[in-house]
Amino acid sequence: MSKTNLRADFKLGYLGAGQLARMSALQAFRYGIQIGLYTDRSGNEPVEFMTPYSTTGSFDDTEELTAFASEYDILTLENEFLSSLVLREVQEQSGTPIYPSPSTFAKIENKLIEKQTFEKAGIPVTPYALVGTVEEIQKFGNKHGWPFVLKSSKGGYDGYGNETVNNPEEAEAAYRALGGFKGHKIIAEAFIDFSKELAVQVARNETGSVVYPCCETIQENHINTAVISPAPIDPEIRKEAQKMALSATEALDARGLFAYEFFLTEDGNLLLNESAPRPHNSGHYTIEGCITSQFENHVRAVMGLPLGSTEMRKPVVVMMNLLGKYKRKAKVNHFRKSMAQVDGHLHVYGKLQSKIGRKMGHYTLLGDDLEAVYAQAKEYAEQIQL
Amino acid sequence: MSKTNLRADFKLGYLGAGQLARMSALQAFRYGIQIGLYTDRSGNEPVEFMTPYSTTGSFDDTEELTAFASEYDILTLENEFLSSLVLREVQEQSGTPIYPSPSTFAKIENKLIEKQTFEKAGIPVTPYALVGTVEEIQKFGNKHGWPFVLKSSKGGYDGYGNETVNNPEEAEAAYRALGGFKGHKIIAEAFIDFSKELAVQVARNETGSVVYPCCETIQENHINTAVISPAPIDPEIRKEAQKMALSATEALDARGLFAYEFFLTEDGNLLLNESAPRPHNSGHYTIEGCITSQFENHVRAVMGLPLGSTEMRKPVVVMMNLLGKYKRKAKVNHFRKSMAQVDGHLHVYGKLQSKIGRKMGHYTLLGDDLEAVYAQAKEYAEQIQL
Repeated sequence: MSKTNLRADFKLGYLGAGQLARMSALQAFRYGIQIGLYTDRSGNEPVEFMTPYSTTGSFDDTEELTAFASEYDILTLENEFLSSLVLREVQEQSGTPIYPSPSTFAKIENKLIEKQTFEKAGIPVTPYALVGTVEEIQKFGNKHGWPFVLKSSKGGYDGYGNETVNNPEEAEAAYRALGGFKGHKIIAEAFIDFSKELAVQVARNETGSVVYPCCETIQENHINTAVISPAPIDPEIRKEAQKMALSATEALDARGLFAYEFFLTEDGNLLLNESAPRPHNSGHYTIEGCITSQFENHVRAVMGLPLGSTEMRKPVVVMMNLLGKYKRKAKVNHFRKSMAQVDGHLHVYGKLQSKIGRKMGHYTLLGDDLEAVYAQAKEYAEQIQL
Repeated sequence: MSKTNLRADFKLGYLGAGQLARMSALQAFRYGIQIGLYTDRSGNEPVEFMTPYSTTGSFDDTEELTAFASEYDILTLENEFLSSLVLREVQEQSGTPIYPSPSTFAKIENKLIEKQTFEKAGIPVTPYALVGTVEEIQKFGNKHGWPFVLKSSKGGYDGYGNETVNNPEEAEAAYRALGGFKGHKIIAEAFIDFSKELAVQVARNETGSVVYPCCETIQENHINTAVISPAPIDPEIRKEAQKMALSATEALDARGLFAYEFFLTEDGNLLLNESAPRPHNSGHYTIEGCITSQFENHVRAVMGLPLGSTEMRKPVVVMMNLLGKYKRKAKVNHFRKSMAQVDGHLHVYGKLQSKIGRKMGHYTLLGDDLEAVYAQAKEYAEQIQL
């Protein structure tokens, strides 16, 4: 492909049609380009209401994917339910570049290779081991402590495909559940006594790299409920996390927007926990919180455009995930105060069906004082019913 | 209709499919609602690439419009190529509310009634007179000076449908060109020796009103090339313009986003020149320049939602219109520096064809020092080729 110019008929194709494609597409439109979707779901994804071009098919179907790819200038991904082999084949057959590239994707689709890549780059990761027998699993637990987690080294998204092992007796069942006896490669990963979970997003392409502030992600019952940026920790640790995120992105030879999750241990050390080759919930606050959002830099990065400033617009930003409180046809109630708040920004994702705990939107509040902003944002998030 | 709640399947219909609908729709999507278009153009409007729902038809065809309206929760307009009688009929037949309302629209579609409405509200307007004969036209010129402008009291958009009368001899031809002899009502309007042109946007609905800063619009050869906000004038005059814009919006009993253009005369007086019942080019700077953009407040206003803060994000904002420099298939060149500039924001409208002088996009730069920001923004606008 020739050097990317902005053209009115430039077409960016998304593999996946979830909220990340939706929010990224909103930025793509700002450059006057057209977007299309390839999804394995059966319609009614909100982003499908934002384009005339939606295709439904399997993410394994190389032929269908290639036909889709041929209609676009560049493809990008918004989730990890894909195989690097399929991506490579589709890229070769269609001649349409895919970013993040299949070779970058190959490094992170496999949890083992991902960890080895980061370790080689000098980035501390959570303790892990490749385990091939039930005995090795038990040995891992005895060394690193119980409980810990078993992961299939391929796949795994948002906590699916993981098994917690609480004691030696549970090792065999967990190993079987993940397909260990069928030859799936399984890695064991230690649970970390962390004091905080942190996140950093990085955009990178041939024009350079930009790194977002290090934020803190707050979990309740293992679900991310809030993001605070910058993370209320020693600024030196934030800088260190940003440096690691940049190194990780280099190590992946990444083109696109990448998100990293870190554990800050009780004794003040950083461990890289997870990476995502795409915009991430931890970076939604950047839509209003930073001069250039993660979604805009996602589009810029994959298109080979200069990257935008990640500078924050106000000293403090808090983003609250708005989780479904009902099972019902989706609607929003009690949102008016939150919307009238100066520099409070309500986002509703347009999902047609609300379910308890489902991410239905988010609310971002900018301000100067962390305690006041966080308290206010939490209050609104509790009020808003959806 | 019941009180507006945010619902995932809420449908906002646009009458018109130009850039204003496009930029407004981007904000509508943020609330997870769906949009549809009714346009009298033959396809390939950029916003049509942003929805599966486009209908082509005439703006006179009450039946077609009613069928379209019946599919939507609320309709809004993005231009003035409509008749209040048609709007009223469509609203009645479909039961779908239209905002701005047909009765508000009736007050501004007719230039004479518009001026009378504003005068009654105590807002100074440019000197004008209803002229029914060639002699009356000549008398107007002798009183207010030559040249001056004749306008059909209905219609007129972006300078079309006006005739400049340079001397008594031109009166008859101008009167004929506007249909004066066929019974069209014609008004004469004096040219004003103004020092600056100013603009103010106002959003209003049942929850209240918000007013944007008073900005200056810079014209070159009668084409708006730049907008500076706030206008570099006495702050008291800015306040006065905001006050007038609010009064005008009250007088129109408006629900929606309204834009007003003022002349600041050589002797420091403000005259209301034009109003638009929709987002306006003079307010594009608000997308990044203010906490809530004119487009977001447009959507909020017509949906009956609380209005957002119009506070500026930086002390100075300059918006440069990017006009086509070629006749060619649309593409953008030499934009990279502008895009790498901190707090510089490139918007490309996605029009498929570039024409010399056609509005193809805009560039907004935020900063602290007017002279520096304006000089830099102008430099980029000159560099960018489209």
